[in-house]
Amino acid sequence: MDLKTELTNRADVFNKELEIFLKKGKPQTLYDAARHLPLAGGKRLRPVMAMVACEAVGGDLKKVMSVAIASELIHNFTLVHDDIMDKSSLRRNMPTVHVKFSEPTAIIAGDLLFAKAFEALHTLTGDPVIFKKIDYGLINIIREICEGQQMDMGFENRKIVDESEYIEMIRKKTAVFFQYVAEAGGIVGGGSKKQTDGLNIYGESLGLGFQIQDDYLDMSSDEETLGKDIGMDIRNGKKTLIAVHSLNNAHGEDRKLLQKIFGNNNATDEEVNQVYHLFNKLGSVEYARKTASMYDERAKKALNVLDDSNAKSILLQLADYSTIKREK
Amino acid sequence: MDLKTELTNRADVFNKELEIFLKKGKPQTLYDAARHLPLAGGKRLRPVMAMVACEAVGGDLKKVMSVAIASELIHNFTLVHDDIMDKSSLRRNMPTVHVKFSEPTAIIAGDLLFAKAFEALHTLTGDPVIFKKIDYGLINIIREICEGQQMDMGFENRKIVDESEYIEMIRKKTAVFFQYVAEAGGIVGGGSKKQTDGLNIYGESLGLGFQIQDDYLDMSSDEETLGKDIGMDIRNGKKTLIAVHSLNNAHGEDRKLLQKIFGNNNATDEEVNQVYHLFNKLGSVEYARKTASMYDERAKKALNVLDDSNAKSILLQLADYSTIKREK
Repeated sequence: MDLKTELTNRADVFNKELEIFLKKGKPQTLYDAARHLPLAGGKRLRPVMAMVACEAVGGDLKKVMSVAIASELIHNFTLVHDDIMDKSSLRRNMPTVHVKFSEPTAIIAGDLLFAKAFEALHTLTGDPVIFKKIDYGLINIIREICEGQQMDMGFENRKIVDESEYIEMIRKKTAVFFQYVAEAGGIVGGGSKKQTDGLNIYGESLGLGFQIQDDYLDMSSDEETLGKDIGMDIRNGKKTLIAVHSLNNAHGEDRKLLQKIFGNNNATDEEVNQVYHLFNKLGSVEYARKTASMYDERAKKALNVLDDSNAKSILLQLADYSTIKREK
Repeated sequence: MDLKTELTNRADVFNKELEIFLKKGKPQTLYDAARHLPLAGGKRLRPVMAMVACEAVGGDLKKVMSVAIASELIHNFTLVHDDIMDKSSLRRNMPTVHVKFSEPTAIIAGDLLFAKAFEALHTLTGDPVIFKKIDYGLINIIREICEGQQMDMGFENRKIVDESEYIEMIRKKTAVFFQYVAEAGGIVGGGSKKQTDGLNIYGESLGLGFQIQDDYLDMSSDEETLGKDIGMDIRNGKKTLIAVHSLNNAHGEDRKLLQKIFGNNNATDEEVNQVYHLFNKLGSVEYARKTASMYDERAKKALNVLDDSNAKSILLQLADYSTIKREK
């Protein structure tokens, strides 16, 4: 089994369904703006995870499409609004929605995607009690994503952040979404309570691992990249797990160095390099690697409730994939 | 029966329920921003209409609270986002959310209110099939409100707008919401299909009448006001029904005058006055008055399906209220 092929095949199926669902409409500008990002591709990790989770409990792929489409539209709605907040001008190598269509239209386009996501969820057939549960779950994670995004913005203005706060932030901002798609995929697929509970833990753990690993990958990349991404993160004072660990464990001269340089937009390359080496010296890079790995292991263990299948192998490899990416 | 007292009494009941539902939360800034506008009062027309519609079919007020809260939160979410789009700095005599809390926080606060509205809807007890219907209805009107808002923005850049386009815009932007609360109030109150269909027509017609009347009121006010509100609307080229009627019915010199002055930010007071008198000469002000009145009559007629009750009297007077306001 080749993981990439398995993921791509499902993303292709999903893309066709999404294209059918997210039709053109009027006013045309609004619908062009709303379709701009979701129809531009992307990894489709959330819908694909919902699909594979559904398969893993022996469910019918047709039943999970409502959840898959709703999840991808919610993900895209948050990206459209986040890009306005962050004043980002590029995403997926294209101008962001607010740059291409104006900020007011981007705000409404995001709102429309939000509404369309719940419209997609309503295509779920069968027991309305299950619909209510799936619907309520999606509302809840949107609330948490909003809270996580606000926490993340709040962290920017703070000198120090506890590790528990950091984990809570990425849990809300990233992990609850994977938790949702994995569990919901299992529920609409007809999985047992034990199985959907396992998928819930799998999704959350994988989401936490992914996010920590993202930061770790940035930090452990080569010197050339260091000059750009890491330098930017250090100068912006971005609260990654690595930074949080160092900020909480540095003493004496190390602490003074961090306080002087971390979050200092005018830091020189030499100073950024000092902080980078401090992160390593304090064991923070290794700590982040271990933590991500711990979450990945927890994700895999949670799948013990599933019978062996091709779908289960995909889920397991997805968790390993983080490790593979880390080793590159 | 005193209409104002009846409305205020219900708004008071509603306000207590809303305060209980919209609790403080973390991050505090986000919840402060989300609570800022909805807890600052307002007319509560939408929740009160849902409540009275529920009463009018003999329903239990407790059952309609989920719809009432959801509707008010959706209304407030659109206001928070609209204020960002319009760069408005004041609402309800307070700084707008983006002015007080920053634009990024206002975008998320609006998104959170959107999610909280659907959370409120989930407190609806009873038949999940009815829940699904009510839930789907709310999603649909949000889509239409987004479309209406975008249409309205698009009109700003156009020389001329058809009357049918104008009606479609205010239908989406305003009327569908009253249509929804009136019908949904009747549905959760246990009304018959005939009754809820009547309430549906009542709400839509009332919403259209309200919106047209708003424009009419501005236009028919005294000379002093003329210098401010109307002058601004004429200079901004705002597509009210009065303006739309004139733009579509002016010929010869009248047409040239409109083309020169309507939408011209540098128009003099004298020129604005000429357009104002043209609006009257072409019968556009009278046309708008008659159209609003027609919708109000349609609204009242649709209530024939209801038995006489205090609640029905309130709904009838609400439709008359527009006329009363017009006569002042």
